[in-house]
Amino acid sequence: MVDIRYDVLGIGNAIVDVLAPAEDSFLAQHDLAKGGMMLIDADRADLLYGAMGSGTESSGGSAANTVAGVAALGGRACFVGKVCDDELGRIFAHDIRAIGVDFHSPPATSGAPTARCLIMVTPDAMRTMNTFLGACVELGPEDVDEDLVAASAITYLEGYLWDPPGAKEAFIKAMGAARAADRKVALSLSDSFCVDRHREEFLDLVEHHVDILFANEEEIISLYEVDSFDAAMQAVRGHCEIAALTRSEKGAVIVAGDEVHVIDAEPVAHVVDTTGAGDVYAAGFLTGLAEGRGLPECGRMAGIGAAEVISHMGARAEVDLKALMKTKLG
Amino acid sequence: MVDIRYDVLGIGNAIVDVLAPAEDSFLAQHDLAKGGMMLIDADRADLLYGAMGSGTESSGGSAANTVAGVAALGGRACFVGKVCDDELGRIFAHDIRAIGVDFHSPPATSGAPTARCLIMVTPDAMRTMNTFLGACVELGPEDVDEDLVAASAITYLEGYLWDPPGAKEAFIKAMGAARAADRKVALSLSDSFCVDRHREEFLDLVEHHVDILFANEEEIISLYEVDSFDAAMQAVRGHCEIAALTRSEKGAVIVAGDEVHVIDAEPVAHVVDTTGAGDVYAAGFLTGLAEGRGLPECGRMAGIGAAEVISHMGARAEVDLKALMKTKLG
Repeated sequence: MVDIRYDVLGIGNAIVDVLAPAEDSFLAQHDLAKGGMMLIDADRADLLYGAMGSGTESSGGSAANTVAGVAALGGRACFVGKVCDDELGRIFAHDIRAIGVDFHSPPATSGAPTARCLIMVTPDAMRTMNTFLGACVELGPEDVDEDLVAASAITYLEGYLWDPPGAKEAFIKAMGAARAADRKVALSLSDSFCVDRHREEFLDLVEHHVDILFANEEEIISLYEVDSFDAAMQAVRGHCEIAALTRSEKGAVIVAGDEVHVIDAEPVAHVVDTTGAGDVYAAGFLTGLAEGRGLPECGRMAGIGAAEVISHMGARAEVDLKALMKTKLG
Repeated sequence: MVDIRYDVLGIGNAIVDVLAPAEDSFLAQHDLAKGGMMLIDADRADLLYGAMGSGTESSGGSAANTVAGVAALGGRACFVGKVCDDELGRIFAHDIRAIGVDFHSPPATSGAPTARCLIMVTPDAMRTMNTFLGACVELGPEDVDEDLVAASAITYLEGYLWDPPGAKEAFIKAMGAARAADRKVALSLSDSFCVDRHREEFLDLVEHHVDILFANEEEIISLYEVDSFDAAMQAVRGHCEIAALTRSEKGAVIVAGDEVHVIDAEPVAHVVDTTGAGDVYAAGFLTGLAEGRGLPECGRMAGIGAAEVISHMGARAEVDLKALMKTKLG
């Protein structure tokens, strides 16, 4: 039996975000589905970047944001993901390490550049994401060390990994290694379009392989192709040990067998940008679990983290999350 | 006589900012003089970057920030500066163009990478800057088109250009071209350490070549080596057509021959990061001049712009500056 060295091992696409404000007319003009994540190729990335406004760059990636949040909250976290050995790749590696996450995946030395996500933030604070996967397509099973997975209490996987074929193999290998070592597997469904692309396989994952599921209302409704949140919640009950289902300003519902908790959203004075909300939600929740807290308190930690990150531009917390939790939870 | 196509032509170091919060102890540990701008080499940049926290990247550069502000305010602006043909260089070019500034300086295709400024923002909102000039050392007189200068009502130069030798030659050529075409020359003294490095030459510039001078209290005191703001103000009177002297929360004093205006600072609810304050101040002031406004109103526009930029992280405005001016000035 390997000793546990990490509370959470995150595996995901390693991405640098480029955020800029945009009007709704910009989305219409460029045929962008508001709130979604679209995969784009290099040419489309050049075109959209040329059209979008002046931006700021910051490290992103769904699972990467989550482990960054876990580390910021005082948890032990590690990340596996593929950057290229270029300027944005060095920025990604610097930022995730600077926040306290162990990150040792070797960068690709040839091929596509580090992935970027062009994010348009509309005045209603919704983010619309356009991801050029770049070097993320180089991630493969060889990047997953089974001993590392065995040394991690929870292996957290993002649904987006299902898009690049090599990353999907890495996902499956990590899941198997966690199972073999009797560790937990957590999954974020990522995005309702992503669920659309991989529904049958995601259903199998949720029903047979995942212990802790994160999904928002749209994603869980899409997964089960039902027409209400309640129907989706009933469908997922019993499949996972824990499902944390988020509903934006309506708060979240946490389902664990017979246990059902309805947690109110944390109040936010002014919602600026929802980028990263779900990622930091998962960070708070998983850190709570690692600390041995009960589900309602895990849900509150999750909500407090999400409320912080939507109150400003960018996907990662701007304040000391650990101190914030202490203030809020008492 | 060439027709005027630009209200302001800015010439400066083309820099991408890397901003991260830092404690005062970090400054002490790394021997950084709070509030200043230090020039660093590539090794020192690597060392400091490795030690600093997770950051965000955004386009910066003093004169570049100013012309970005002029364009955001509706003025016609152009920028001359040197990036490398790399990822950060493309980000710089994208951002300045996206905001409406004409920027056609060809990037360097070899040599050092695009310049970056590692900026530590302490809890008191002060920024401490560490600049690796990178490709900026490639700027030279060949990058200054005399017709472009002649087509610009005001050529705005940053004192920082005096650091790389080629840029200094570009500065002198631009100043001569503006003179020859009977256009105005504006200068920002940039930084009190920069004034220390080049005092004799800056004195000559201010006394003989500059029409519009921007300086903060420390810089103008350093220039004249006096011990009070008033003494510095008396010293500069008569040398420039206009001197706009900024004093942070004490507001600004504008001196123009016999005219002296004392303009109060705009109130700011919470000062977050002073990066770019002086640059956007100059943008508001120069745009006011271009619009034919009186000096007190130019001073108010300047102060309103500065107040916006210090209320958040980063050197460029986050709101629609033109709309903000309309609301504030009525």
